[in-house]
Amino acid sequence: MRSENRSDQQCRNLSITPHFTNQAEGSVLICSGQTQVICTASVEERVPPFLKGQDQGWVTAEYSMLPRATNQRVRRDRGGQVSGRTLEIQRLIGRSLRSVVDLKALGERTITLDCDVIQADGGTRTASITGAYVALAMALDHLKSSGVSFISNPLKGQVAAVSLGILENRILLDLDYLEDSQAEVDMNLVMTATGGIVEVQGTAEGEPFSAAQMNGMFELATAGLKGHFAAQLEAIAQGRR
Amino acid sequence: MRSENRSDQQCRNLSITPHFTNQAEGSVLICSGQTQVICTASVEERVPPFLKGQDQGWVTAEYSMLPRATNQRVRRDRGGQVSGRTLEIQRLIGRSLRSVVDLKALGERTITLDCDVIQADGGTRTASITGAYVALAMALDHLKSSGVSFISNPLKGQVAAVSLGILENRILLDLDYLEDSQAEVDMNLVMTATGGIVEVQGTAEGEPFSAAQMNGMFELATAGLKGHFAAQLEAIAQGRR
Amino acid sequence: MRSENRSDQQCRNLSITPHFTNQAEGSVLICSGQTQVICTASVEERVPPFLKGQDQGWVTAEYSMLPRATNQRVRRDRGGQVSGRTLEIQRLIGRSLRSVVDLKALGERTITLDCDVIQADGGTRTASITGAYVALAMALDHLKSSGVSFISNPLKGQVAAVSLGILENRILLDLDYLEDSQAEVDMNLVMTATGGIVEVQGTAEGEPFSAAQMNGMFELATAGLKGHFAAQLEAIAQGRR
Amino acid sequence: MRSENRSDQQCRNLSITPHFTNQAEGSVLICSGQTQVICTASVEERVPPFLKGQDQGWVTAEYSMLPRATNQRVRRDRGGQVSGRTLEIQRLIGRSLRSVVDLKALGERTITLDCDVIQADGGTRTASITGAYVALAMALDHLKSSGVSFISNPLKGQVAAVSLGILENRILLDLDYLEDSQAEVDMNLVMTATGGIVEVQGTAEGEPFSAAQMNGMFELATAGLKGHFAAQLEAIAQGRR
Amino acid sequence: MRSENRSDQQCRNLSITPHFTNQAEGSVLICSGQTQVICTASVEERVPPFLKGQDQGWVTAEYSMLPRATNQRVRRDRGGQVSGRTLEIQRLIGRSLRSVVDLKALGERTITLDCDVIQADGGTRTASITGAYVALAMALDHLKSSGVSFISNPLKGQVAAVSLGILENRILLDLDYLEDSQAEVDMNLVMTATGGIVEVQGTAEGEPFSAAQMNGMFELATAGLKGHFAAQLEAIAQGRR
Amino acid sequence: MRSENRSDQQCRNLSITPHFTNQAEGSVLICSGQTQVICTASVEERVPPFLKGQDQGWVTAEYSMLPRATNQRVRRDRGGQVSGRTLEIQRLIGRSLRSVVDLKALGERTITLDCDVIQADGGTRTASITGAYVALAMALDHLKSSGVSFISNPLKGQVAAVSLGILENRILLDLDYLEDSQAEVDMNLVMTATGGIVEVQGTAEGEPFSAAQMNGMFELATAGLKGHFAAQLEAIAQGRR
Repeated sequence: MRSENRSDQQCRNLSITPHFTNQAEGSVLICSGQTQVICTASVEERVPPFLKGQDQGWVTAEYSMLPRATNQRVRRDRGGQVSGRTLEIQRLIGRSLRSVVDLKALGERTITLDCDVIQADGGTRTASITGAYVALAMALDHLKSSGVSFISNPLKGQVAAVSLGILENRILLDLDYLEDSQAEVDMNLVMTATGGIVEVQGTAEGEPFSAAQMNGMFELATAGLKGHFAAQLEAIAQGRR
Repeated sequence: MRSENRSDQQCRNLSITPHFTNQAEGSVLICSGQTQVICTASVEERVPPFLKGQDQGWVTAEYSMLPRATNQRVRRDRGGQVSGRTLEIQRLIGRSLRSVVDLKALGERTITLDCDVIQADGGTRTASITGAYVALAMALDHLKSSGVSFISNPLKGQVAAVSLGILENRILLDLDYLEDSQAEVDMNLVMTATGGIVEVQGTAEGEPFSAAQMNGMFELATAGLKGHFAAQLEAIAQGRR
Repeated sequence: MRSENRSDQQCRNLSITPHFTNQAEGSVLICSGQTQVICTASVEERVPPFLKGQDQGWVTAEYSMLPRATNQRVRRDRGGQVSGRTLEIQRLIGRSLRSVVDLKALGERTITLDCDVIQADGGTRTASITGAYVALAMALDHLKSSGVSFISNPLKGQVAAVSLGILENRILLDLDYLEDSQAEVDMNLVMTATGGIVEVQGTAEGEPFSAAQMNGMFELATAGLKGHFAAQLEAIAQGRR
Repeated sequence: MRSENRSDQQCRNLSITPHFTNQAEGSVLICSGQTQVICTASVEERVPPFLKGQDQGWVTAEYSMLPRATNQRVRRDRGGQVSGRTLEIQRLIGRSLRSVVDLKALGERTITLDCDVIQADGGTRTASITGAYVALAMALDHLKSSGVSFISNPLKGQVAAVSLGILENRILLDLDYLEDSQAEVDMNLVMTATGGIVEVQGTAEGEPFSAAQMNGMFELATAGLKGHFAAQLEAIAQGRR
Repeated sequence: MRSENRSDQQCRNLSITPHFTNQAEGSVLICSGQTQVICTASVEERVPPFLKGQDQGWVTAEYSMLPRATNQRVRRDRGGQVSGRTLEIQRLIGRSLRSVVDLKALGERTITLDCDVIQADGGTRTASITGAYVALAMALDHLKSSGVSFISNPLKGQVAAVSLGILENRILLDLDYLEDSQAEVDMNLVMTATGGIVEVQGTAEGEPFSAAQMNGMFELATAGLKGHFAAQLEAIAQGRR
Repeated sequence: MRSENRSDQQCRNLSITPHFTNQAEGSVLICSGQTQVICTASVEERVPPFLKGQDQGWVTAEYSMLPRATNQRVRRDRGGQVSGRTLEIQRLIGRSLRSVVDLKALGERTITLDCDVIQADGGTRTASITGAYVALAMALDHLKSSGVSFISNPLKGQVAAVSLGILENRILLDLDYLEDSQAEVDMNLVMTATGGIVEVQGTAEGEPFSAAQMNGMFELATAGLKGHFAAQLEAIAQGRR
C-alpha cells in the first residue's frame, strides 16, 4: 500500500500556504505529503551583468535543504563546492519558471526564487517548482499593488511539476522517498496548465524504459497536475485577500 | 512605543513549538516576536577527530539565515567564505550549549544544533540559543527512550539568552530589528536558570557604557529570562507527550 | 540547408578513432561533424569511500572543454566553483555509462571516463557518452588481456546518445551549435542498442512541446542511433587489432 | 606564583616600540610579557564599496598569527576557509578601533590595521587592540605631517584592552597562556581612557560567573589599563621624535 | 640507448601542425616525441584591469594536462587550489612569450595562450613554449588578415625552449619522462633565435652542478634549438597557405 | 650610487639573529639591508601521506609577506587561491633546503621552514633561503640536544642564496627593490659552500642575456656568498651558546 492509502495514479495531499514568512514579496509553504518547502520570491531592481542594458528582466532560483530535512544529517553546501545535485535542481527550477515569464514585460528587475526544503520525503524539486510558481505570482501581484505598471502581463502561463516512477512494472505518480529509492525509473515532468511539456527528465536507474511507458507517464502526469494547478490558483487568490 | 506595546523591561511574546519537523531527534520552531528560528538537534554516534578516543562527546552548532529572512535578500554562505558574522554566532551557540552539557556523561556521540532563521526581526542569535536548548533536551529524551543509558544526566543545567541595548539612555530588553539598528550599545547575555552568566558580549556602537549600566542590564536580563526558562520547560514537557 | 547537406532526419558524419592517446586503458577521439571529444577510460584498483567493502565497482565521468573549444574563449573550471553546466553534464555521462555496467561483475575497481572537448559545435554531451562507451569497452578489453578474469561480463549493454530539437515546428536530429542556439526545444536522448531509453532530458526554451512531438523525437533518435551503435562496434573491433 | 612574579592584580611588562617596520604609515611592535605583535596601520585613499559616496572613511583590521607563534605549529589561514577564531578576533579589533574614530572627520580613506602575532603567550587579541591604537595614531600623525588637513580630529578617544579570568575563584588580570588554558572564566575588556566600556566579551568555560564577579573584573581592568594608556601616549610621543 | 635511437646531443622528433582546432585565432598541435600539446592563441579586445588605459596589450598563458595525459590519472586543477606546479609552468610560458612581443605595438588587446597537454612524456613546458610561439604568430597573422594594422610589428623575436639534464655525468638534450625522473639536474632553457637566453631554470635534484656544466648545457641547447626554430617557421608558413 | 654606498660586486649588510622568537625548534631574524625575514623551523614527528612508511623524513617551506612589508599594502593569501608567486617561492625554498638534507638520516619527521617577510626591499626569497638554512641547523641541534640520535648527520652541506641582475649592462650583486624593478635580467642563484649550483633561475625582463653574462653572474655570486656562509656559521654557533 502507498502512503496516504492512495492508488498508483494519485498524488499525495498538497497544500500551499501563502504569506508563510513576512519579508519577501512572495512567500509560501508548500506541503506535498511529508515534503515541506518554503518558497520565497525576492524582487531586486537590477539584472545580472550578462543582461545589462538589454531591456529585460531575469528569473532565477536557488535550492537548498536544511541539514536535517532528511533522515541523516547532510552537510551544508557551504564554504566550498556546491554539490552537483543542488546546482542541477536549482537550474531546473529557474528554467521551469522562466518558461512562463515574459522577461521583456518584466522589465529590468530580477526575481529570485529561494526554495528551502525544511522536510524532505521525495519530490522536493517538483514541490519547489509548484510552490515557486505561486511565490512568483504573489511577487508580481505585490509589484502591481505597489504601483508598478507592466507593458503587458509578465506571467504568460502557469507551470507545475510532479514526479513519476516505474516500480515493479507499475507506473506510480508522485513518489515518496521510500518509493523513489526503490524505483527503476525516475521521472520529473514540468508541464503547463494547457498540457504542454516544459521539462522532462527521466533516468533509468535499473532497466531502460520504452516510449510506451514514457507515454503512460505523460498521461498520468497530465491528469495528476490538474490538482496542482487548482491549488496554485487557490493559494494565489488567498494571498490577495 | 515598542512593538507589542511592551515596556522597556518586557520581552516579546515567546513561543516554542516542539516536533516542528519530523526527522531530527529534537526539533522546535521558536518565535520571539517576529523572529522565527527552526532549531534541530541531530545525534551522530561519532565524535570529531580532535576528540577521538577521549571517551567523551561533543556539542556543536551551525547557524544560517534563509536568504529572505530579512528585509533585503542576503546571499547564501555558499561556495566560498562563510561570513565572519555567521561563524561568530554559531561559535557562540555551540559554547553556550556546551556550558550545560556534561560531555563525559554524553558518551562518544556528537549532537549538532542547526539553527535556521526563517524570519529575522532582531535577536536571532539569542532565540537560537533558547530554542536549541529545547531541541537538545528533546534529543536527549529521544536517546533515553531509544534505550540509551547514560552514566549520569548529560544535561547539567538550563540555559537561555536574551539581547539588551541602550537607546537614548534607556536600557531596553529584547530588542527588535528597528531598535537594534538604532541602539548605542548592543548586548547579548546567556545565563543559566540559576542566575549565572555563561556568556556576555557587549558592544558600544556609539558611546561607551559604564559598569553601572552593565549591572542594570544584568538585572533586567535575569528578570526577563524567567519567562524563557518556563517556556523551555513547558516545550520539553509538551514534546514528551 | 543543414550542415553537411543533410536532411532533418540525418546525423552528422561520425568517426571514432581508438587509441587516440597512448596512456589510458581506453582512449578515443570522437568526431561528430565539427564537434571533437577525447574520451579516455582510466582504471583504478580502488573504489570511492561510499562503496568501500561492498564488493562492487564504480563508473564515473568528468567532462571539460578546452577554453578555446568554442567561438569565444571560456574560463577554465578552476580554482573555484565548477559550473553547474559542467557538473550536470558529467553526472549525465556517469549515469548513462553505469546503466550498461554490472558493477558487481566489475569488482572493486573504478573506471573514470574523462571527456575533454577539444572542438565544440553542439552535441558535446551526447558525443561524450557515445565516445565514452567505446573507451569503457576498450578498458575492459585491456583488463581482460592483462589477465583479469571477471565473474561475468561487466558490460551488459551498449549505450549511445544523440540530441534533437524542434525548430520552426520541424523536428531535427543531431543539432549543430547554430541550430541548437535557435531551437525552441532541446532534447538529449540516451538509448541502448535494444531500443530502451536510459535518459531523457528535454527543455522547452520557448514554446512547450506535446507528447506527440516527444514521440516523434523518440522515433527519430531510435533510427539515428543505429549508425552510432555500428560505429562504436567498429571502433571497438579496430581497437583490438 | 604568576609569571614575572606579579600579583593577581598586576599586568605583565608592556612595551610598545614605534616605527618597528619602515613601510607603513604607522607601525609598532607591542610586547606584553612573552606575547609579541606587529601592528601596522596602512592608509588607502579609497573606501570599501558599501561606503562609496557617503563622505566618510573606514577603519578595519586583520589579525593573523605566524604559524609558529605558538607551541605547536598551526596551519596558515590560506587557500580556503579563514578560521572562525581569526574572523572573530579581527572583527573585535576593527570595532574597538572604530569606537574612537570619527569616520566623518577621517574623510574618504581607509585605515587597515594589520595585527600579526609573531610570538603568542595569551592575550594576543588585547595586545593587538592596544598596539593597533598606537599604529593608528601614528598613521594620523603621518597624514597630518604629509599636509592632510582634517575638518576635525579624527581621533576622538583612546582605547586599550586587557584580558581577565577567574581561576580557583581568584580574579586574575592579564593572563598568560598557561593561566588562560586553566581559567574557568575568560574575559576581554576594551575600555577608553575615560573609563567607558567599548567591548566586553566573557565566556564561562566551566562554572558560570556572577554579576558581582563581573564587577570585580571591571574594577581590576580599569586600574590595570592605566599603565596601557600611559605606554600608548609615550609610544606616540616617541614616534613623533 | 635513448628513445628514438638518438645520441645525447639530439632532440626527439618534433612536429608542429597548424590549424589543429578551428575556433581559435591561432592553434597548433605540437608533438615532441610522445609528448603532445594543443596550443591555442585567443585574442580578446580588452586588457586586464592592471593595464587599463596604459595603451598597451598583454600576453598571458594557461597550462593544463588532461587527467590521463600521464601514466597515472591525475586529478583536475578544479574546484579548489590550482597546483603550484601548474601556476609555475604557466607563469613561465607567459613570461617567455612576452619576451618577444612588443606590448605597445600589440595595442589594447590580450592574447591568451592555452597549452593543454593531451599526452605527456617529459618536456611538456618546453613544448608548450615552442608551440605557443607558433599559435601566437598565427593569431597575429589572423589579426593582420582581418584588417588590423599595427603601428609596428608586435612580434620582435622568435622564442623556443628545450629541456636538458645531467644523468650519470652525461649532459642530455631533450629528456623524455624516464630520463627526466632519473636525472640529477633538471634544466629548462628558453632562448631566442639569435642565441639570447630568455629564461633559465635549473635544479639539482641530487648533486649540485658546476658553472662548466651549465655552459655545456647552454651550448647543447643553442645547437638543439636550431631545429625548433626551423620547425616553427615552417608551421607558420604552412598556416598561411 | 647603490644603497649602503656599495660597489656593483658587494652584498648589502647581512645579519642573522638566532632565537628571534622563542617557540620554534629553530628561529632567526635575517636582515639583508632593509629586507627582514623571520625564519622558523618546526619539527613534527610525522611525514606527509606520500612518504608514509618509506623510512625517511621531509623538509618543506612556506613563504609569506606581512601585508605591509611593502610600499603598498598587499592582500593576504587567504580564503582563496594562494598566488602563483608565493607558491613558486616556497617551492624554491623547500627544494633548496632539501638539497643539503639527507632525508633518510633525518628519520620519519618533517621540518617545516616558515619564512615570513616583515619588511621587503628586494631579495626576499634569497634571504629566506639563507635564513632558513640557519633555522634548520638550529632545529637539528635542538633535536640532538633533546636526545635524538641520528644514524648519520642529516645535514650534508651548507646552502645560501643571492640575487643578481643586469642593469644598463652592469652586472649587480644583491639587488634592492629599486634596482630589481629596473633590472633587465633578474637572476637568483642558490649555491653550496663548496661552490656547486643547487638552483638557478634567471629571467630576461627586457633584452635576452648571453652565456658569457651568465658566467659573470656565477663568478660574482660565488664570491659574494662567502660572506653569507660565514654569517650562517656564526649564527649557528651563537645559537648554541
